[in-house]
Amino acid sequence: MNQTLDVAVVGATGYTGAEVCSLLERHPRVTLRHRFGGARPFDAAALEALLAAPVDVVFLATPHEAAAGLAPRLLEAGSRVIDLSGAFRLKDPAAYARWYGFTHPAPALLGEAVYGLAEWCGPSLPGARLVANPGCYATSALLALIPLMPLLEHRVPIVCDAKSGVSGAGRSADPAYSFAEVSGNFSAYAVEGHRHEPEIRQAAGLDPGRPFLFVPHLLPVVRGILSTLYLTFRDPVTPGDVAGVFDAAYTASPCVRLLAPGQVPDIRSVAGTPRCDIGFVLREDGRRAVVVSALDNLMKGAASQAVQNLNRMHGFDEREGLL
Amino acid sequence: MNQTLDVAVVGATGYTGAEVCSLLERHPRVTLRHRFGGARPFDAAALEALLAAPVDVVFLATPHEAAAGLAPRLLEAGSRVIDLSGAFRLKDPAAYARWYGFTHPAPALLGEAVYGLAEWCGPSLPGARLVANPGCYATSALLALIPLMPLLEHRVPIVCDAKSGVSGAGRSADPAYSFAEVSGNFSAYAVEGHRHEPEIRQAAGLDPGRPFLFVPHLLPVVRGILSTLYLTFRDPVTPGDVAGVFDAAYTASPCVRLLAPGQVPDIRSVAGTPRCDIGFVLREDGRRAVVVSALDNLMKGAASQAVQNLNRMHGFDEREGLL
Amino acid sequence: MNQTLDVAVVGATGYTGAEVCSLLERHPRVTLRHRFGGARPFDAAALEALLAAPVDVVFLATPHEAAAGLAPRLLEAGSRVIDLSGAFRLKDPAAYARWYGFTHPAPALLGEAVYGLAEWCGPSLPGARLVANPGCYATSALLALIPLMPLLEHRVPIVCDAKSGVSGAGRSADPAYSFAEVSGNFSAYAVEGHRHEPEIRQAAGLDPGRPFLFVPHLLPVVRGILSTLYLTFRDPVTPGDVAGVFDAAYTASPCVRLLAPGQVPDIRSVAGTPRCDIGFVLREDGRRAVVVSALDNLMKGAASQAVQNLNRMHGFDEREGLL
Amino acid sequence: MNQTLDVAVVGATGYTGAEVCSLLERHPRVTLRHRFGGARPFDAAALEALLAAPVDVVFLATPHEAAAGLAPRLLEAGSRVIDLSGAFRLKDPAAYARWYGFTHPAPALLGEAVYGLAEWCGPSLPGARLVANPGCYATSALLALIPLMPLLEHRVPIVCDAKSGVSGAGRSADPAYSFAEVSGNFSAYAVEGHRHEPEIRQAAGLDPGRPFLFVPHLLPVVRGILSTLYLTFRDPVTPGDVAGVFDAAYTASPCVRLLAPGQVPDIRSVAGTPRCDIGFVLREDGRRAVVVSALDNLMKGAASQAVQNLNRMHGFDEREGLL
Repeated sequence: MNQTLDVAVVGATGYTGAEVCSLLERHPRVTLRHRFGGARPFDAAALEALLAAPVDVVFLATPHEAAAGLAPRLLEAGSRVIDLSGAFRLKDPAAYARWYGFTHPAPALLGEAVYGLAEWCGPSLPGARLVANPGCYATSALLALIPLMPLLEHRVPIVCDAKSGVSGAGRSADPAYSFAEVSGNFSAYAVEGHRHEPEIRQAAGLDPGRPFLFVPHLLPVVRGILSTLYLTFRDPVTPGDVAGVFDAAYTASPCVRLLAPGQVPDIRSVAGTPRCDIGFVLREDGRRAVVVSALDNLMKGAASQAVQNLNRMHGFDEREGLL
Repeated sequence: MNQTLDVAVVGATGYTGAEVCSLLERHPRVTLRHRFGGARPFDAAALEALLAAPVDVVFLATPHEAAAGLAPRLLEAGSRVIDLSGAFRLKDPAAYARWYGFTHPAPALLGEAVYGLAEWCGPSLPGARLVANPGCYATSALLALIPLMPLLEHRVPIVCDAKSGVSGAGRSADPAYSFAEVSGNFSAYAVEGHRHEPEIRQAAGLDPGRPFLFVPHLLPVVRGILSTLYLTFRDPVTPGDVAGVFDAAYTASPCVRLLAPGQVPDIRSVAGTPRCDIGFVLREDGRRAVVVSALDNLMKGAASQAVQNLNRMHGFDEREGLL
Repeated sequence: MNQTLDVAVVGATGYTGAEVCSLLERHPRVTLRHRFGGARPFDAAALEALLAAPVDVVFLATPHEAAAGLAPRLLEAGSRVIDLSGAFRLKDPAAYARWYGFTHPAPALLGEAVYGLAEWCGPSLPGARLVANPGCYATSALLALIPLMPLLEHRVPIVCDAKSGVSGAGRSADPAYSFAEVSGNFSAYAVEGHRHEPEIRQAAGLDPGRPFLFVPHLLPVVRGILSTLYLTFRDPVTPGDVAGVFDAAYTASPCVRLLAPGQVPDIRSVAGTPRCDIGFVLREDGRRAVVVSALDNLMKGAASQAVQNLNRMHGFDEREGLL
Repeated sequence: MNQTLDVAVVGATGYTGAEVCSLLERHPRVTLRHRFGGARPFDAAALEALLAAPVDVVFLATPHEAAAGLAPRLLEAGSRVIDLSGAFRLKDPAAYARWYGFTHPAPALLGEAVYGLAEWCGPSLPGARLVANPGCYATSALLALIPLMPLLEHRVPIVCDAKSGVSGAGRSADPAYSFAEVSGNFSAYAVEGHRHEPEIRQAAGLDPGRPFLFVPHLLPVVRGILSTLYLTFRDPVTPGDVAGVFDAAYTASPCVRLLAPGQVPDIRSVAGTPRCDIGFVLREDGRRAVVVSALDNLMKGAASQAVQNLNRMHGFDEREGLL
């Protein structure tokens, strides 16, 4: 009755992998059998051992291309895979060459992979062998955007101005992320296009002709993403309308917290938590909304969402090990 | 021939006033006769003395309502006034009750005051008795927006997502600006409407029906504003078109630096300088642009712009004392 | 058997009080009956109610003088008191006028109060009615210093150079703690003498003639204290000698972690934890040591040490609710 | 009469080299002929060109070992050299193997090199061919320590607890200096011995048997060093005694600012300036002092001190290009 899962984490020394391990170690229904990375590298021998004696679930927190190569072999050996990289998020194989810079080695799995935006992947998760854990920016944008999609005017751009802490760039040796460069600074990047943009388009159902502007920025903080969305409605709405839509979407979602109309969240309130907080303000007589969402990029934007997905895949309470 | 001006600064102990004093002390054509504030308060006696022996120019770096009361008396005594508060920025007296919370005591001067956005106030400045130095956010938004106004589609909102360092809030005892609250945090504020919004509308010529969304955010840095504007053109444009428009607008402006198409500025490059840096990226086949502007809120957003205005009022080189 | 305690927190809105509440809410053997502060002020009526229906333990996280006045009344009503202020830390009533600026209203209780340095207060804690929770700097210095005291040369000064994050100053409206002042800065303060100095002298048994130099500094971080102690031994020692002394002192102490000889701790490793980490390096052929201790000033330096004391007063496992 | 010097900077892309270039570009009596580094590497061809057409002065801001190799050749070609690395700071060739990890290639020059602690190198500077610009920590410690040396008790350790911003580590790709690691953290390092220690011992005249403890720490700020020294006098002194000693030492030193007795400096006051600020507090009836010195590690701790040395070598006013 009290099922316990054997799991492994590959890439345990990055910020994301370390956060996943930290959550799994405290999870009452999980035994963390292997953590690869750092002093215990995931080399050929480690892989063979993992294939020979597969665990129930493998979390991949590796670079994208490595995950794309590993997942098929782990699945074949009988493990389920929760991939925290971007390797299985996009359905279109051609998109990988453009946005990730490699030809996808397992295009057939792109169709099978379940996009693990926990609050929106519904009944497909329990049976999934392969879960593509969403990007941090994508989670932040989508949780704010999806419920309002049916109300939006098609011809006006959806604008998402997103700001992230530096841990989103991983444990990097790039001097661009040194304290001396980041402290006291703030900048936009990837203004011409960021790889989370096709992911958001796909998950929100935005067809190519639909105008959508997403620009990420680098904040001098360690953890957290705050996204500010600027939306135009087809017809004017009231605060009650919008609150009703959000309430209906997230009434059973313990990891989304809705603020009262007129209130917006900040990063501090969500840092270290598995929550995404969402608030909104209506402007111009209800014809437009500013929606703000905040989450911890290493938690709801990565590790805690992966654990949410683990819980839902196995019928555990969604909050197990998290709240 | 080498005219030297006698000037005074009222409110010299705030961040803005201190920055003005620091610039004026190094200005080769200015003698800083009086700096009021702190140990030398601007009380009734100080005012009487300043009225009795007026200097050429008085810089006001006081709270808004105080400036609204002081300016008429200083003008009457024969000084010219450069007001760094918001007291004379808006033309509509009624707007003061709504946005600043006081009934304007000198509405007749609102029409006379020249809005001192240095690059756009043209020939009105040399003769001005009263200059309303623009708000920091407004400067940041307007320098990016004004040149492109003729190209924009009217029915699509202009979106300006602005982020400012904490010195913009002044030398405050508010615990909201304490290190413990600001460090590691990031938040949107005044989402329902900020007082620089009517100022931007007025100076950019946006009529009330024109959709415009401006949202300020608080950055955990001391100095700097970065504004990201999302604009939609009436007809598709090329990078060369946009670069041409910006070049034409700012070719003679030493305090605006235009980046190459595709490049966007950051805060670090402008901190401590009198410059506003502007860059842009075109999106969706030239139908939209993301324009990023960056400036130091205490310099181009306040003190150095005031000195630019001083220079232009008196026929000095615009860069005098600044570059 | 599973005793549950009813407790109250007075001063719940300060950083320390909030941290105490947060720990008590998660404590399995505690019910947090009342939290006073903020929207629920601790006024005369609240005090009367708390005296009329006393809880088992009251945590005081108020200003020093307030705590000095409250504790006698709460004790008389039958509650035990854990005071996180400095009101009962010093044994000498006269010291309060000098170091805290008020005449102590309950000098008789100074003798009774148990100084709650959890690892060193021994068997006096279980029977204590009134616990004086140590100061954050004092905890940091004493845990590193006390075990080595018998080895030290008396005529050479003990030097403790301590550095603290800003939350140590409380939730202050003082502009000195604003982000704009603290960010990018670092300073020594109270160089002429800090009130934790007599506390350290008393608890370490340093008589007035013993040379001791303690200087606190303000770090641009939110949480954490790191103290660097410079000690001279009577006779040369080996790393093994020192490690042995520390091991013997803390072998049964779950909230002290000893690093290997030659290793020293940093603030990040202890932030958010109830631990004090201690490391040392010997210099000059074992005649001197540099000892570094690190802790979270709001946790082991305040709130978690208070909960440790609660646990030991009631015979609970010392780690209950903490580790 | 208005002599202008031709100079070159090797290693212009590091933080120190960039700061040197920035100062030299504004220096009225210097023409910066060459800046090597980054897009214009200092390769064999560049060296040959610089040897064939030597400039008056070459500033070396390279790694230590590179400077040790370059200086002899540049001197031979007729340039004077100001070396900002540690390659010529120590007189004992054997010390280089221990503290810098290489065998010194030009031990004969160690005797000739003038240690360029500007305020203390006296008449040796004007004739110097080779100046060893002091280390940042060493400058900070020595300016506070040297004047008081004659008053100190020999048997009690001199303690110097030093804290530096991260730019002291150079423009590093080491993840240890990433924002995610440094922000919110503070740590001691090189506790077993730092290479500025022998430099301080040599310049302060501390023989090997004299007890001296120096421990550097890493601050989460970009610029600045604050050193806290704990000193014991042979005989009790008064604040006036100590102030008198400092005044006598620095009365003609525009780059040292002495604070009033009882006042100590902070990092913010010196960041971006060529000054070292020094303050002190007497303790224990004048038997001991806490002396605090603060400077900008990239300025007085490196680049501006190099320019001070340039000025003094050539008989310019010491403040030229600096104040």
